[in-house]
Amino acid sequence: MKFRISRSALTEAVASVSKAVSQKTTVPILTGIHLSVDEEGCWLMGSTSDLTIQVCIPTKQDDKNLVNMETMGSIVLPGRIFADIVRKLPGDDVEVTVDERWKTTLRSKQAQFELKGLDPEEYPHIPQLQEDRMFSLPAELLKSMIRQTGFAVSASEARGVLTGVLWTLSQGTLTFVATDSHRLSRKKAEVEAPKDLSVENVIVPGKSLSELAKILQDTDGWVDVVLSDNQIMVRADHLLFFSRILEGTYPDTNRVIPQGGKTDIVLATKELLQSVDRASLISRDGRDNVIKWTMKEEGTVQVHSAAQDVGSVLEEVTAKVTGEELSISFNAQYMLDALRTVDSDEIRILLTGTMTPFIIQPAEREDSLHLIVPIRTR
Amino acid sequence: MKFRISRSALTEAVASVSKAVSQKTTVPILTGIHLSVDEEGCWLMGSTSDLTIQVCIPTKQDDKNLVNMETMGSIVLPGRIFADIVRKLPGDDVEVTVDERWKTTLRSKQAQFELKGLDPEEYPHIPQLQEDRMFSLPAELLKSMIRQTGFAVSASEARGVLTGVLWTLSQGTLTFVATDSHRLSRKKAEVEAPKDLSVENVIVPGKSLSELAKILQDTDGWVDVVLSDNQIMVRADHLLFFSRILEGTYPDTNRVIPQGGKTDIVLATKELLQSVDRASLISRDGRDNVIKWTMKEEGTVQVHSAAQDVGSVLEEVTAKVTGEELSISFNAQYMLDALRTVDSDEIRILLTGTMTPFIIQPAEREDSLHLIVPIRTR
Repeated sequence: MKFRISRSALTEAVASVSKAVSQKTTVPILTGIHLSVDEEGCWLMGSTSDLTIQVCIPTKQDDKNLVNMETMGSIVLPGRIFADIVRKLPGDDVEVTVDERWKTTLRSKQAQFELKGLDPEEYPHIPQLQEDRMFSLPAELLKSMIRQTGFAVSASEARGVLTGVLWTLSQGTLTFVATDSHRLSRKKAEVEAPKDLSVENVIVPGKSLSELAKILQDTDGWVDVVLSDNQIMVRADHLLFFSRILEGTYPDTNRVIPQGGKTDIVLATKELLQSVDRASLISRDGRDNVIKWTMKEEGTVQVHSAAQDVGSVLEEVTAKVTGEELSISFNAQYMLDALRTVDSDEIRILLTGTMTPFIIQPAEREDSLHLIVPIRTR
Repeated sequence: MKFRISRSALTEAVASVSKAVSQKTTVPILTGIHLSVDEEGCWLMGSTSDLTIQVCIPTKQDDKNLVNMETMGSIVLPGRIFADIVRKLPGDDVEVTVDERWKTTLRSKQAQFELKGLDPEEYPHIPQLQEDRMFSLPAELLKSMIRQTGFAVSASEARGVLTGVLWTLSQGTLTFVATDSHRLSRKKAEVEAPKDLSVENVIVPGKSLSELAKILQDTDGWVDVVLSDNQIMVRADHLLFFSRILEGTYPDTNRVIPQGGKTDIVLATKELLQSVDRASLISRDGRDNVIKWTMKEEGTVQVHSAAQDVGSVLEEVTAKVTGEELSISFNAQYMLDALRTVDSDEIRILLTGTMTPFIIQPAEREDSLHLIVPIRTR
């Protein structure tokens, strides 16, 4: 195996697949990056037990030669050090040579590295997916759906399906739902899908999705999503992303979302966010991070929090209040998480009572919804 | 105690003194910030057992009122939360009111915080220094002297005086020396001092100096240095910095610095730094982080490192070599630390043998010197 490759293209590709390379794992070969070269270009792959990322550096792009293949082949190289070396090599190109004992030589200008490679046959094979269940959406939309729901998954591995985001697709509408049972986030969007394609109970690990969002960071254009029984694949330009799907049945969350409300308030998102952020300076030192809102008919929300050893905070935020006066206490962090992802200047909050879950939505739209379960206070 | 103060000025001052406020300490009041107000302005102070930082916000600056004092007084407020609150308050001004039970109210626009303050009489008093041993130098120079020596102090608290930087002053020349016994860094500079002022064996903790460098980050102009038996004070505009001086006698380091050399090489600093940085990718996985240089008469330095389980690196750097061909092995991290602080495009390296300490200096100057003790290799 021997080829020359553009160092900047290799650096970028290595950085992408490195997101799926563990430093420590019970399967030593998974600390490596799988590299292969053929007429099409150079393929890099990283895998954890949950996800696999594959990137292709094409032989030619925009009339520039990126890869010059002399002999085909593949190799697994130690991930962390290979990434560091590629980033720090002095030249614009790297020459890669692998001998029959997997000894790999990297040459770039005056520098020459020799690395102990591993047999690529030992590396897990990439999943083969049937492409009959497939839909497409803009990368920007997928990232925004992940951002607006992913934070609400349970951080505790013991919670099973709640560590994932539920994907459903029906009549061209894709819905993401995430909940840790104290709060819930839901986001809907139209996607390009076959009319009769219906997807239920696909639960994608929250961690996989946050990696996916990072990898797609600079990607615009459309991506394809392909589903199988136990894997999901996202395909972008020169990039394949595979994630395991969680086993189990996701709970029916529709029944916890209240319909209608006793009190309806509309506020400026940024002003509210800053006020909760300030109040949480006090509440974070207390138990449960509790702050209390009191909606006043005259058009304000009074924000209050107190922690025994620290002190207290009180402030008023202007709001359009419709309905009954009402007080509610909740975890400030849940509110911050939700408000930080809202992409609307004004938000609507719908309350049905002091002890029932309440809803946060963009003031003028219903495609996005956050629900928070209040906290009983003395 | 009651006053109004510019929030931006207060935010900046709190950030400075916070560098001397511990989150955890055996003396609980030291987690607080000492605040006092009088006709001159508002004084803030933070202290650890090693250092004290005091900042003054003057009543008026550049025709702008920064502090409006109504009643004088002082208070100690919980450091971390006070800093966070000040930074996040909504208005341009903050009104501070303290009652007789140290309850402190902070008001800014629609927000109002109440904090439990502490009796300022319990706070340690600021050291009073005689100003008879004093000299002055530009803040930029002081920062650069700290940067070029501070990294070489011992990180192990058990090493006593070697955790500090030795300051000596003689005939207007200030010298900093730091060593952990494996490497040494020395920097000299002319300062403005009384002709007869001589300073010996003043050892300032390396940690204090790195905090000082951070605090002086945006300071230009000159600073005064005042010395007492057990404290050093640095005075800049509206800022006082006090550090404890380490007890004990610093070893005589002059005898370890070789005079003359068998081999003398001159290289481009940046190119050498990058080459050592690359070689350390291999060496850092091995014991002692060893890389080996071989000086060749034809004008190159061959850089080599190998680690059993990883691989090896070999490269050649162009150099002007004078004297004998020679090989030397050393800790790559020590070389990186030294090269990163060199402020000269070319450096000179002076070697006297494979097993004797060698010197790194700017090619054209002798005010700065780094010494590294080589490692015996098989």
